[in-house]
Amino acid sequence: MTGSLVLLSGGMDSTVALAREALDHRAKFALSVDYGQRHRKELSAAVRIAAEYPEIEHEVLDLTGWGRLLTGSALTDPRVPVPHGHYAAPAMAITIVPNRNAVLLMAAAGVAIAVGCDEVVIAVHAGDHPVYPDCRPEFIDQINRATALATDQAVTIRAPFLNYTKTDIALQSAIYAAPVHLSWSCYEGGERHCGRCGTCQERIEAFLDAGIHDPTLYAL
Amino acid sequence: MTGSLVLLSGGMDSTVALAREALDHRAKFALSVDYGQRHRKELSAAVRIAAEYPEIEHEVLDLTGWGRLLTGSALTDPRVPVPHGHYAAPAMAITIVPNRNAVLLMAAAGVAIAVGCDEVVIAVHAGDHPVYPDCRPEFIDQINRATALATDQAVTIRAPFLNYTKTDIALQSAIYAAPVHLSWSCYEGGERHCGRCGTCQERIEAFLDAGIHDPTLYAL
Repeated sequence: MTGSLVLLSGGMDSTVALAREALDHRAKFALSVDYGQRHRKELSAAVRIAAEYPEIEHEVLDLTGWGRLLTGSALTDPRVPVPHGHYAAPAMAITIVPNRNAVLLMAAAGVAIAVGCDEVVIAVHAGDHPVYPDCRPEFIDQINRATALATDQAVTIRAPFLNYTKTDIALQSAIYAAPVHLSWSCYEGGERHCGRCGTCQERIEAFLDAGIHDPTLYAL
Repeated sequence: MTGSLVLLSGGMDSTVALAREALDHRAKFALSVDYGQRHRKELSAAVRIAAEYPEIEHEVLDLTGWGRLLTGSALTDPRVPVPHGHYAAPAMAITIVPNRNAVLLMAAAGVAIAVGCDEVVIAVHAGDHPVYPDCRPEFIDQINRATALATDQAVTIRAPFLNYTKTDIALQSAIYAAPVHLSWSCYEGGERHCGRCGTCQERIEAFLDAGIHDPTLYAL
């Protein structure tokens, strides 16, 4: 039983990761996780993106019960305002969902075994490292070791973009014809991407730096 | 912010762990997890056990969405029969919920941060090691390293019974006056403990070996 399970948030990075895994004929399963994130548009984006790959099974995992026990993060607690400004700035710390990637990866590893996949792919990248500790190479390495032990070597965690910049990912989106026009990055829940929040600014810069047409509609 | 969050399954081991943490004035929070396990009585047992410690907050975390994506385990899939016989036997492999403890520990670590605890306590013991890879010391060590990285050292995983036998835990139940009479071990869902399934046999033997009165009502 081989093949990859791709964690598909509905953002740009995981969309490109899915496109690459699909073209490599590795992807068997795409898993999106609803942990009560405020940017609900990300999840509906994930559904539309997955629909572009009818040969890959897609499920939305309901972890809202977990999100309900977390408070104090701008990403799950509606009382906490979303910060504006650059993605790498200290203000973004409020968007940390405690231990999120570890929960997502471990839940995904269990599902991978159940559906017959030997890899879990997560699209964390170098731009995530300063703000989110659970996106750093040393974390991915350790959680991989823990997963190997917990699953008797049945599942490996793979982070193909771990040392990529967002600009590298924008370039890859063109190479793999990823449906990034369907993806959603904005931390606000508007009709269009706000263009002002940290992830919007990061997205804008990535396409600019890569010299790739940005298919995103911004409210600016 | 210090104190422990105790994973309370409603079984005997975690009941004794909670009693010990409570007597040590460490326990601040008890967390039970509903992942769709077939032995539902375990969860109602957890609620009754937690009620013995009104100073400790208790929540049942709903992870049934995760359990629904798993198939093939006797513990979550109603189509798979529960094996009878000794707990350490190969037949018990069917009761493995893939990556369960990693999911429980990582979800608990996130909650610990949210509620201001610096430790997550899990009551795995030496008798679990042969069957369940995610109960072994090397797994606990690695998941602890991963947690430290993911949470910027905010949370430690502690497994106080890691090298204890079930008999040691039965002894501890007396020392800490743990309400094990309220706990539930049986993998079947009967009125009383069946006395035949692997966990029932293990429980019976533990009290016998420890020379402690077994408060359990068996159907035998």
